[in-house]
Amino acid sequence: MSHNSFGHLFRVTTWGESHGPALGCVVDGCPPNIKLTAEEIQVWLDKRRPGQGKFVTQRQEPDAVKILSGVFADERTDGQVTTGTPISMIIENVDQRSRDYSEIAQAFRPGHADYAYFAKYGVRDYRGGGRASARETAARVAAGAVARKILDGVTIRGAVVQIGPHAIDRSRFDWDQTTENPFWCPDPAMVSVWEDHLETVRKSGSSTGAIVEVEATGVPAGWGAPIYGKLDAELAGALMSINAAKGVEVGAGFASAAFSGEENADEMRMGNEGPLFLSNSAGGILGGISTGQSVVARVAFKPTSSILSLRQSINEAGEDIDLRTKGRHDPCVGLRAVPVVEAMTACVLADAFLRHRAQTGGGAHLPGKVADR
Amino acid sequence: MSHNSFGHLFRVTTWGESHGPALGCVVDGCPPNIKLTAEEIQVWLDKRRPGQGKFVTQRQEPDAVKILSGVFADERTDGQVTTGTPISMIIENVDQRSRDYSEIAQAFRPGHADYAYFAKYGVRDYRGGGRASARETAARVAAGAVARKILDGVTIRGAVVQIGPHAIDRSRFDWDQTTENPFWCPDPAMVSVWEDHLETVRKSGSSTGAIVEVEATGVPAGWGAPIYGKLDAELAGALMSINAAKGVEVGAGFASAAFSGEENADEMRMGNEGPLFLSNSAGGILGGISTGQSVVARVAFKPTSSILSLRQSINEAGEDIDLRTKGRHDPCVGLRAVPVVEAMTACVLADAFLRHRAQTGGGAHLPGKVADR
Amino acid sequence: MSHNSFGHLFRVTTWGESHGPALGCVVDGCPPNIKLTAEEIQVWLDKRRPGQGKFVTQRQEPDAVKILSGVFADERTDGQVTTGTPISMIIENVDQRSRDYSEIAQAFRPGHADYAYFAKYGVRDYRGGGRASARETAARVAAGAVARKILDGVTIRGAVVQIGPHAIDRSRFDWDQTTENPFWCPDPAMVSVWEDHLETVRKSGSSTGAIVEVEATGVPAGWGAPIYGKLDAELAGALMSINAAKGVEVGAGFASAAFSGEENADEMRMGNEGPLFLSNSAGGILGGISTGQSVVARVAFKPTSSILSLRQSINEAGEDIDLRTKGRHDPCVGLRAVPVVEAMTACVLADAFLRHRAQTGGGAHLPGKVADR
Amino acid sequence: MSHNSFGHLFRVTTWGESHGPALGCVVDGCPPNIKLTAEEIQVWLDKRRPGQGKFVTQRQEPDAVKILSGVFADERTDGQVTTGTPISMIIENVDQRSRDYSEIAQAFRPGHADYAYFAKYGVRDYRGGGRASARETAARVAAGAVARKILDGVTIRGAVVQIGPHAIDRSRFDWDQTTENPFWCPDPAMVSVWEDHLETVRKSGSSTGAIVEVEATGVPAGWGAPIYGKLDAELAGALMSINAAKGVEVGAGFASAAFSGEENADEMRMGNEGPLFLSNSAGGILGGISTGQSVVARVAFKPTSSILSLRQSINEAGEDIDLRTKGRHDPCVGLRAVPVVEAMTACVLADAFLRHRAQTGGGAHLPGKVADR
Repeated sequence: MSHNSFGHLFRVTTWGESHGPALGCVVDGCPPNIKLTAEEIQVWLDKRRPGQGKFVTQRQEPDAVKILSGVFADERTDGQVTTGTPISMIIENVDQRSRDYSEIAQAFRPGHADYAYFAKYGVRDYRGGGRASARETAARVAAGAVARKILDGVTIRGAVVQIGPHAIDRSRFDWDQTTENPFWCPDPAMVSVWEDHLETVRKSGSSTGAIVEVEATGVPAGWGAPIYGKLDAELAGALMSINAAKGVEVGAGFASAAFSGEENADEMRMGNEGPLFLSNSAGGILGGISTGQSVVARVAFKPTSSILSLRQSINEAGEDIDLRTKGRHDPCVGLRAVPVVEAMTACVLADAFLRHRAQTGGGAHLPGKVADR
Repeated sequence: MSHNSFGHLFRVTTWGESHGPALGCVVDGCPPNIKLTAEEIQVWLDKRRPGQGKFVTQRQEPDAVKILSGVFADERTDGQVTTGTPISMIIENVDQRSRDYSEIAQAFRPGHADYAYFAKYGVRDYRGGGRASARETAARVAAGAVARKILDGVTIRGAVVQIGPHAIDRSRFDWDQTTENPFWCPDPAMVSVWEDHLETVRKSGSSTGAIVEVEATGVPAGWGAPIYGKLDAELAGALMSINAAKGVEVGAGFASAAFSGEENADEMRMGNEGPLFLSNSAGGILGGISTGQSVVARVAFKPTSSILSLRQSINEAGEDIDLRTKGRHDPCVGLRAVPVVEAMTACVLADAFLRHRAQTGGGAHLPGKVADR
Repeated sequence: MSHNSFGHLFRVTTWGESHGPALGCVVDGCPPNIKLTAEEIQVWLDKRRPGQGKFVTQRQEPDAVKILSGVFADERTDGQVTTGTPISMIIENVDQRSRDYSEIAQAFRPGHADYAYFAKYGVRDYRGGGRASARETAARVAAGAVARKILDGVTIRGAVVQIGPHAIDRSRFDWDQTTENPFWCPDPAMVSVWEDHLETVRKSGSSTGAIVEVEATGVPAGWGAPIYGKLDAELAGALMSINAAKGVEVGAGFASAAFSGEENADEMRMGNEGPLFLSNSAGGILGGISTGQSVVARVAFKPTSSILSLRQSINEAGEDIDLRTKGRHDPCVGLRAVPVVEAMTACVLADAFLRHRAQTGGGAHLPGKVADR
Repeated sequence: MSHNSFGHLFRVTTWGESHGPALGCVVDGCPPNIKLTAEEIQVWLDKRRPGQGKFVTQRQEPDAVKILSGVFADERTDGQVTTGTPISMIIENVDQRSRDYSEIAQAFRPGHADYAYFAKYGVRDYRGGGRASARETAARVAAGAVARKILDGVTIRGAVVQIGPHAIDRSRFDWDQTTENPFWCPDPAMVSVWEDHLETVRKSGSSTGAIVEVEATGVPAGWGAPIYGKLDAELAGALMSINAAKGVEVGAGFASAAFSGEENADEMRMGNEGPLFLSNSAGGILGGISTGQSVVARVAFKPTSSILSLRQSINEAGEDIDLRTKGRHDPCVGLRAVPVVEAMTACVLADAFLRHRAQTGGGAHLPGKVADR
């Protein structure tokens, strides 16, 4: 319910501004007796860490996460485990350079949340975007790392499938390639194209948009629920909440608008190990409930709003101004969004798993089996 | 929280199956002293009513709504008004033809929720899709009609912008045209193209997808909130929960992935009546908060899954079967979705209005004014 | 979250006014495949039905409940079962006598919610108390009947333990007696005392308060959760929400304020079938979590506010008035509260059961067993 | 919804164990532009701090609170103000003495949450009670300090009205006295009685219960809402969630069970400044909505479960044991509960204020005024 929380049973609350002393999250509802250490969470945070190349922002933050509660270790627990109580995690902001904010303190940068926050609250922490900074997504990634731990058998991975006007060739889609280049690119032939495009964008002080795809394999049938708790509706809300996201689609998504009914509806056959779908236009979800196929979604990210061009705007005094946004910027915020999209997907699935277990006891009714009524 | 409710303060709970005795909704949290009659709600329900043409399903339902609670009239209230207590609305299912369901009772129709419901619950009301039927959206439309009543100065309207592969020419976009044809089409040159396409689809027993656009004008700056209660995140979740929705985008949406930073970030200037934006790539939302521009979103709908072609599937016994879906069907479910998209948008905005009023007292801080700190 | 809903996973939304066309509730989150008929629910409604004696109100309502959704029956389900979708139940108001409300339409009856509703909303349905009428509790009882169906092995029963100044002698407490008299009295020696007291109260046009005790046996250890989802906190909120409730206590309750630590803390010993407690001051709950002992709570009900004495008050115009409340009244609203207290307890426990199953998979870790880590 | 959060719009999430590195809370939904410093919050924390006398536990914790987010100061904000974003507060645990927990690591201390946590989770942080420790209430007090800041004109104060069997004489009730003695005692004649009682209890290694009363003056009419969001229901849930609470009552509470209708229903007259009530049996709440009278509630606290007597219990291995609880203990936990009861009341009222403003715009309809319909 609250503005800075999401999830129903696996409930994540985040807090913190870009240039405050720290940021963090509280994860409530995690099952007990799950092994969990800060080191495991750090792995995922390191993936989203800026400073890993010239195409992501130069801000150097170790983003070191600490767990402040909700875990316990003694000789009987065989390592540190969750206790079922809230897991509080904190990441200190160590790179809060003292700089002069006088230029932007009263200005509304185009494309940023500056004006909207001012209009709503009448006050805002303008340093580095304040609460609207992409730094907040570090807390999401930490929460997602916890979510992954309770999703036995589920694998969640992301890729960038378009940067600027350059979309991958899906016939060359290879998940293994995504870790072989700095762009999470699954199409090896596209890497150099994106590199050239990003270099051009960076040199011109501009920015570019991107599309991120996420896939969750191993999701059993039965997660999600009608009608407003549909798995795809929950996913859409969670993914659209990521900074700079402008669109979300599941399965064939917007392309399905051009489909015929025959192209769209995935046919089924009985396989040796259970029901098989002969295609996956649905993206693994029918009627809001997972079908056992891979859950597939895509998120469109707009270009970073911080660019070097001189732009028309206004300030708090209601005066016309022209400004350019200096400082360190990613030319493509979508590149840093991949671990965040994965994390949000993990959180939504963990929540759906717990909700399904609550209402039904867990598991799925499979055709040909005596239903466990 | 619950699966069949949405909204936080303007809270809608819907219930009912396609072939049960009735369906309905309960709207909780509506402000008091709002004039409200069943007739006003009926207007919106009539818009989504099937049976209005050969391209929407032939089922003849009056969809007559009754208000069972939450309103009161006496000589002092100047007509029937809301009392602040829950508004229960009911629509009886009068067209429950007794028919033979034996053919589909154990079959999973491709593209439908049949298999997913079975896998989750082990039992399902298979008559007409049960809870997954598009009839449920009547309850959404009723709730949306109430939401509109508390959105003074806000106008919400929808249009179909693509059917099958045929997208409108946006340079011809004219809202006034949407009421002049049976397709909610804002591009007069596209009407005959769609008519031909739909006729072809209908005759072949197939179906086609569509994209619906919704615009809300008059939304003041300041609605929505960081971070997980972002107005676009709430919209995305609400719109994706509509039957057959496969994608949601706000503003420039997926197109913004191909944008440069200059193309994307909307510039501002101070106008005579307040801040002006020089473009609206943002779709009226920045940082999850409304900016005062029109809120614009689009929803992609897949083709109706009920088609006459023989399709491969399985049944509850785990046997391979081939089946075709008989009965009355819309060739394009997107056509009936327009009033539903409008209604969900209205509900999300009404909720955002109340939440904004709760936290801030309402209103917006405008540049150049002394902020009311 | 919404004002007229309670529960988290077993979620009940009620609606309806005393003199509107109907009242009802929607139960969302019920597990599937639970046998459920209207007849089973009717049993519990009949228990709270007015008109069963001269000490409960004379209004004659059949309170016939209908199930409008969420259940399904065919040859394969072995009777009507829940489907996991929302269960909508409705009770029509058949006894809406047309009477003259002009006398109370603008008056605030002392002890009633009249003034509070007016102050909050500026409008109110004054007929029979409107939304604040005890008739609303019929919807709670219907929901509670569903809750009982999913609480295998749990028995919930209520008794009146005090009427006016006359408390039972607990040494004579006999649950079997509660069905042998019209007062839910577990102490046979108290029946005639209460009868005399109530007769005196009734003849004088006055009213009297009461205390209701509820006990749930068979609740396994592990339900409820720290810190704000404590089982006793949830119970307290749910029971205090009943009309006329002014206090709630668990276990020894207020008496424990006078206890020593030795008197209070229940000792334990290992029994043949698991842990045993040697007393139950805790009322079956420690740290907000059930212990396996009986859950015991008590609720204090104030006297009915409708009495025949002339009382000082004011009206909507801000004028001093003197009024007496005519019409049919219970001299002791606590008598009708017993089935309501039971129902709310059932709903809270059903919700706790589902939440516990969500987070832990269900079950309890018992001492001496290898914990299923 | 989540177990460790409470409130709907003024939403508090707490985290932390007694002997972990820190504890804290996140307050979401606070209005913007409220002046707030850590020093102001510290004032309230110091009130609940242990170590203030021989009757409260000897643990020496400075309980120094830090604000990590949600506030901002620059030359234009006239001091540090809230920004509308989540306020994260942290209190480090500096007194985590390294001690030997082997004796209690597997034992279930009678009256404590040890057994219940083990049964539920199969694992627990047994050091100092872990999550069930009364230290968690420091986070509630910090949240309550924020709540007070948004409750203009509302004064919330608490008193102890009974310790063990010794209840105050209400005819001597004097709020000013509560700050003049270490027992929050409003009855000067009772101070020495309680001192003797507590000294006896402390010397014998026993403990004693207590009853705390809280009063909120200045609450306007109209806060709270039917039916499950009743102000008294919210209060009951919040107060019962405090460690060791066993009962909650509002207004006349349990005493009203013995009342006649005449004694109970508070009469009204029109005063110069608005409606007046001639008594306050209702405790300022009718129909779940505040009436403008003082809101009055009482909470019963059981005796501290940690006592020096040898007690019968069992351990995780399922063996009978006898144990006494060593270490530092309060003989009367109720004494430390006063600031916590106040804080929870403040949080509930702040939440009710925001919810009321959301639905109605705020304010109350007063008799004799033209209602602003």
